[in-house]
Amino acid sequence: MSNPSSSISASTENTGFIDFCEQYRGLVETNIDRHLSNSTSEATLLEAMRYGVLGGGKRVRALLAYAAAEAACAPTTMTDAAAIALECIHGYSLIHDDLPAMDDDDLRRGKPSCHIAYGEATAILAGDALQTSAFDILATPNPDITAQTQLEMINLLAKASGEQGMVAGQSIDLNAMNQDLTLDQLITMHRLKTGALIRASVALGALSTNLDDKNLLSALVDYAEAIGLAFQIQDDILDVTGDTSTLGKAQGADAALNKPTFVSLLGLDQAQQKTQELYNQALAALSPFGPKALRLRQLAHYIIQRHN
Amino acid sequence: MSNPSSSISASTENTGFIDFCEQYRGLVETNIDRHLSNSTSEATLLEAMRYGVLGGGKRVRALLAYAAAEAACAPTTMTDAAAIALECIHGYSLIHDDLPAMDDDDLRRGKPSCHIAYGEATAILAGDALQTSAFDILATPNPDITAQTQLEMINLLAKASGEQGMVAGQSIDLNAMNQDLTLDQLITMHRLKTGALIRASVALGALSTNLDDKNLLSALVDYAEAIGLAFQIQDDILDVTGDTSTLGKAQGADAALNKPTFVSLLGLDQAQQKTQELYNQALAALSPFGPKALRLRQLAHYIIQRHN
Repeated sequence: MSNPSSSISASTENTGFIDFCEQYRGLVETNIDRHLSNSTSEATLLEAMRYGVLGGGKRVRALLAYAAAEAACAPTTMTDAAAIALECIHGYSLIHDDLPAMDDDDLRRGKPSCHIAYGEATAILAGDALQTSAFDILATPNPDITAQTQLEMINLLAKASGEQGMVAGQSIDLNAMNQDLTLDQLITMHRLKTGALIRASVALGALSTNLDDKNLLSALVDYAEAIGLAFQIQDDILDVTGDTSTLGKAQGADAALNKPTFVSLLGLDQAQQKTQELYNQALAALSPFGPKALRLRQLAHYIIQRHN
Repeated sequence: MSNPSSSISASTENTGFIDFCEQYRGLVETNIDRHLSNSTSEATLLEAMRYGVLGGGKRVRALLAYAAAEAACAPTTMTDAAAIALECIHGYSLIHDDLPAMDDDDLRRGKPSCHIAYGEATAILAGDALQTSAFDILATPNPDITAQTQLEMINLLAKASGEQGMVAGQSIDLNAMNQDLTLDQLITMHRLKTGALIRASVALGALSTNLDDKNLLSALVDYAEAIGLAFQIQDDILDVTGDTSTLGKAQGADAALNKPTFVSLLGLDQAQQKTQELYNQALAALSPFGPKALRLRQLAHYIIQRHN
């Protein structure tokens, strides 16, 4: 099913992608750092929050927000706010996911997990406070968009990350250990667990430019839907084919927990083929945006090619 | 320091207080129930969220929001939203507080704590999702107030519950076990741990009626500041004088953890005297509101008289 033409077009489209990533990763890191430096909080808590959310990570969600803002129009200061908020939600979810009662992972982004470094109680609180930060940031008065759109963004992020989104996916995942899931059930789980926040990243990026064309927003969500699933399948592939030092987390961790994965259900070849199909779908969804969707196309390519 | 006249005025002002409490407690319970019933989520997670936030509790924060709305003008549908949001934040904080890595409490509101009933992992996720729900609810479009004021309410709740408020207080509390705190340090801890959300309850209630008079808002915050501290001192008094069945949680739990309390620092008599002083301060702050502050005055009285 692999479509050679889109593979080729992606490879000829690499212009400036590394710069784009480096620029916005740097900006997100600086902005989060500044946000947490301005906070008057308890020292240990703040340190654990910084540890959990700064210093690495691919920043895929932030990059998607900036790329979507570029496709819709151009990033605004509200795109900056959205990028920080998304990374705070993602960071909080990783801290809580790694806890002994959850996935019990000692290693994250090549460093000891937050609860290994700061203890369980502080890690729980750091995750809690990072979640709050996300909403704090999105609700801060912003001159670039209407209060109405800001509310819409907050509502969208809440729906994507709470019991109708990410946390629901984590709960299904938790109850799926040692259970057989069908392919449909596995897809549902990942649509919630990682997909919801990826869709929100793209939608928040677009809304942060005041985009209100429903068709364009819907096209962006179709794109995000496809790459969200591709991202997860690639994660499962890397859990089998990657190595711990490149991944920054334990290779084979999912297999060791007896978690169902796309690789365990489809086999490696079909899983790889599926990511290529989803990649093609993602590109097709972007057609209304023409050249302005360059970064979104590059991100789709990056997601299925990444090694960590 | 006890002021007999204000004690007397409180006791002659009891009119309708029980009805007020029952009416709004019932309303909050119904509204939270409806909110969580409409949610399309994973069954176990939803059950744990309901368990953690429904079925009891004094609903002091919700009552404060309604009472402040009455003092400012009259409750609106946004007061309902604020009341649910406040109780979701409070419920999440109790679930996480009770975890083995935190206070390790097996009993809450006379029932097994959430992690005893559903396991640690589900309890962590239920708390996480309840926090998200609070922001989801506050960001839902509302016809009764401006989008601008809604954003202000979200921002205020985030500041009160995150690393500049409640969670900071929990972190200080955590690090205070087996440590000597001065009275000032203890007050700072409780201003954050419980005070911040109590101040937010009163402020959200007032904002939900579109109150924008800065002097009146500031008077309400002074009131909340005083009763927030009184609430905590009364908690410490009950930890010594109450019994487990009335409290719905283990009596002497704080003492057993070697936590500094107002009673351990001031002695029982002085602690009781301090609550009376704070009560008088709270009443004084309400003077600009005249008879419209009846429910706030009654709540202040209730807080220093309560037995659980």
